[in-house]
Amino acid sequence: MANKLRISFYSVCLLSSVALNIYFATTPYFGKKQKPIISWTLKAAAEAEAVASTSCSGHGKAYLDGLIVNGNPICECNNCYGGSDCSVFATDCAADADSGNPLFLEPFWMQHASTSAVLLSGWHRMSYASNDKFEVSPELVNNIHKVHAIARNAITKGKYIVFGGGSTQLLGAAVYALSMNLSSPASVVAASPAYPLYKSQTDYFQNMHFEFKGDALTLNNSSDNLENVIEFVTSPNNPDGNLRRAVAQGKSVKAIYDHAYYWPHFTAIPSPANEDVMVFTISKLTGHAGSRFGWALVKDEVVYQRMKTYISLSEFSISREAQMRAQQLLEAILEGNGKEIFDFGYEKMRNRWEKLSQTIALSNHFTLQEIPNQYCNFFEKVRGPSPAYAWLKCEREEDINCNAVLKAGKIIGRNGSLFDSKDRYVRLSLLMRDDDFDFLLGRLNVLVGNEDGAKTI
Amino acid sequence: MANKLRISFYSVCLLSSVALNIYFATTPYFGKKQKPIISWTLKAAAEAEAVASTSCSGHGKAYLDGLIVNGNPICECNNCYGGSDCSVFATDCAADADSGNPLFLEPFWMQHASTSAVLLSGWHRMSYASNDKFEVSPELVNNIHKVHAIARNAITKGKYIVFGGGSTQLLGAAVYALSMNLSSPASVVAASPAYPLYKSQTDYFQNMHFEFKGDALTLNNSSDNLENVIEFVTSPNNPDGNLRRAVAQGKSVKAIYDHAYYWPHFTAIPSPANEDVMVFTISKLTGHAGSRFGWALVKDEVVYQRMKTYISLSEFSISREAQMRAQQLLEAILEGNGKEIFDFGYEKMRNRWEKLSQTIALSNHFTLQEIPNQYCNFFEKVRGPSPAYAWLKCEREEDINCNAVLKAGKIIGRNGSLFDSKDRYVRLSLLMRDDDFDFLLGRLNVLVGNEDGAKTI
Repeated sequence: MANKLRISFYSVCLLSSVALNIYFATTPYFGKKQKPIISWTLKAAAEAEAVASTSCSGHGKAYLDGLIVNGNPICECNNCYGGSDCSVFATDCAADADSGNPLFLEPFWMQHASTSAVLLSGWHRMSYASNDKFEVSPELVNNIHKVHAIARNAITKGKYIVFGGGSTQLLGAAVYALSMNLSSPASVVAASPAYPLYKSQTDYFQNMHFEFKGDALTLNNSSDNLENVIEFVTSPNNPDGNLRRAVAQGKSVKAIYDHAYYWPHFTAIPSPANEDVMVFTISKLTGHAGSRFGWALVKDEVVYQRMKTYISLSEFSISREAQMRAQQLLEAILEGNGKEIFDFGYEKMRNRWEKLSQTIALSNHFTLQEIPNQYCNFFEKVRGPSPAYAWLKCEREEDINCNAVLKAGKIIGRNGSLFDSKDRYVRLSLLMRDDDFDFLLGRLNVLVGNEDGAKTI
Repeated sequence: MANKLRISFYSVCLLSSVALNIYFATTPYFGKKQKPIISWTLKAAAEAEAVASTSCSGHGKAYLDGLIVNGNPICECNNCYGGSDCSVFATDCAADADSGNPLFLEPFWMQHASTSAVLLSGWHRMSYASNDKFEVSPELVNNIHKVHAIARNAITKGKYIVFGGGSTQLLGAAVYALSMNLSSPASVVAASPAYPLYKSQTDYFQNMHFEFKGDALTLNNSSDNLENVIEFVTSPNNPDGNLRRAVAQGKSVKAIYDHAYYWPHFTAIPSPANEDVMVFTISKLTGHAGSRFGWALVKDEVVYQRMKTYISLSEFSISREAQMRAQQLLEAILEGNGKEIFDFGYEKMRNRWEKLSQTIALSNHFTLQEIPNQYCNFFEKVRGPSPAYAWLKCEREEDINCNAVLKAGKIIGRNGSLFDSKDRYVRLSLLMRDDDFDFLLGRLNVLVGNEDGAKTI
């Protein structure tokens, strides 16, 4: 009887076990029947995971298109780190705050690995955009509308959307579009301090339709004819983070609003922007500067069509891969209530600004720009500053080259003169990785601490 | 005893089965222990496979960035097909041979699904290229060298490589780079029949450094000063497929070789090209027109630097997503002996040309361009033509608008006058999908069959 029972028990166990094996063998992923089958995507998925799991000591990363040596992806180390696994710190290395590389958002994407990943098949959108049923992806356009609606930073309704190779290409397109068919060449201006590209790009492409004429304020005070003026208005401004309006006044003044930083990460949003020509970019929204994807919101159909012509004759259309990535990234940030990236961005930038302000408050040599607290349409409350850049001023009379002063303290900034201002100013980026920001703060603390008579709290 | 044996047997079975349970439960993919574990990439991989498996009757495709209705990807149908699954054929629809959309390579990529797929993580290459350790991916540069070495179509050694947003952007960059610092504005020319973009792009961007002056041959015969000439040389030529050399002769004549079609798909390769400025694009090599990725091979460092400046001021750098895709696609075509795509492309284009030639040979109204048989450095033998386009001529005196004649036969071509030639000519693309080519051939057969006194074989 005992044996019979044992046989029955074994039989039940065996049957259950066999059943489980059949289940495993016919279900591609154990555990959940609903999980999907994958086949031709497995290689690409596994490669991406293998590269991502390369250990670079938290101070570097391996990339899918990076060097592979003996089958192993090679770490690309953060500034000041070296060695095959980026574990070696170069103590005398300078803190680099020169570029506006928006890597502060990298951790956000590592936390959202699954929703932000995108797999492109070999046959994905091979066509020229103009031959495609959807010249631009309707889902991407929808996502752009949605992200503005959540950030409450722009009115998109009734506006045309032009895609561009980053805001850089759209700024150029807007100058061409707005300067066509004028009675005289347009004077292109930007109020100082201004983002250097406005001058360098306009000078480079100068033709019979437009010419760069420098500071918008100077133009206003001059006796020049103020007809046919195109003003770049950066709001919030790069380098100083202040919200701006066009300063050029007069008949036929047209403004190109560069709203790259008009997101809750970097500024209070007093109200949704509603200008004739507004340029945005994922570079400062999601942090993907390398994608070169931006969009312009344009009120007038003729201007919209002309901007499209510019894109078409410059490079035909915008990379389908960049568009697909932008779509996926926007989809990822729209998950839930769609506010997480703004909370993350604001917290990070606000925290950095506070730390920096505390350090500079102790100095007798340096000051920072002032940015007023302001009501924010997104957070629905008054909020403090969280700018993308510090616009540092050397206050001592002899420090006419502020960047040289910083350089002596092993800090790399960008000269004020590049922004049509004085070299008594330096722009310090606050958009870097945590490693780099901490390093910058450390260097500044040393510099301030070494001042004769530095204040103490 | 029998029971004991049975218990032993059950025990062994149960143990084996449980062992198998454990194996399945700890091995993420059944069958092979070597298969990799994937986690955060699974969602993206599964989505790509779900979209790819959408049934569109072989006459359409669903795309990852296409419309989704009720959770289902929507088919985008090929020309002349409609219905929710693209199964409805519009019998009176015109055969569209207007655009140079290189979809003839789509089946190649569907056959190489696994090696060509690429998965981008959310944090992949967020940096501006100039901030990256590798401003351009060294693996992509290597792949470009390799693919030219296999196709034997260009000498890359000792040349600088500039990446661009398709050949379109690189052609513009080359004109700017070659026309700087000249004593007088450069005359930009191209021998007729010529690709229309040379004129439209040069006219649009015209400045104090360059101006489009039309046909290179006319310029040669004129009394104009032949200094400071920039000639676009398309070889093989678009529209007629013939290999070309610069025709402008004189001091300071500079040539921009547009080698978009200088691949074994489309032409014999008499020898590797070795010009000062040569432009290539994946659009006509792999068929990915929508990616906007091209490269220039440049001998002179100054010209190279100037072209980089143009790209930098136009859009900063080239989309990292487009670069990553190009790298993966080139890697896929370099597998094995790296010749498969050229065999595939040549067979396809050669077959189309033969069928088209047979049809047109029966006509008294139409003729095709002649392309000589020629020795090919790649195939190491004399080979016949396999051009990207037919350059069709209407021979009847009254048919001065050849496109109108074709249109009456429900065929859409591109007017000869767009190519700085006569409307007695029409360009017909041969680069489309099989569906579209078969349809074009059918329409031509009807047109020729209806001619009075059409020849018969």
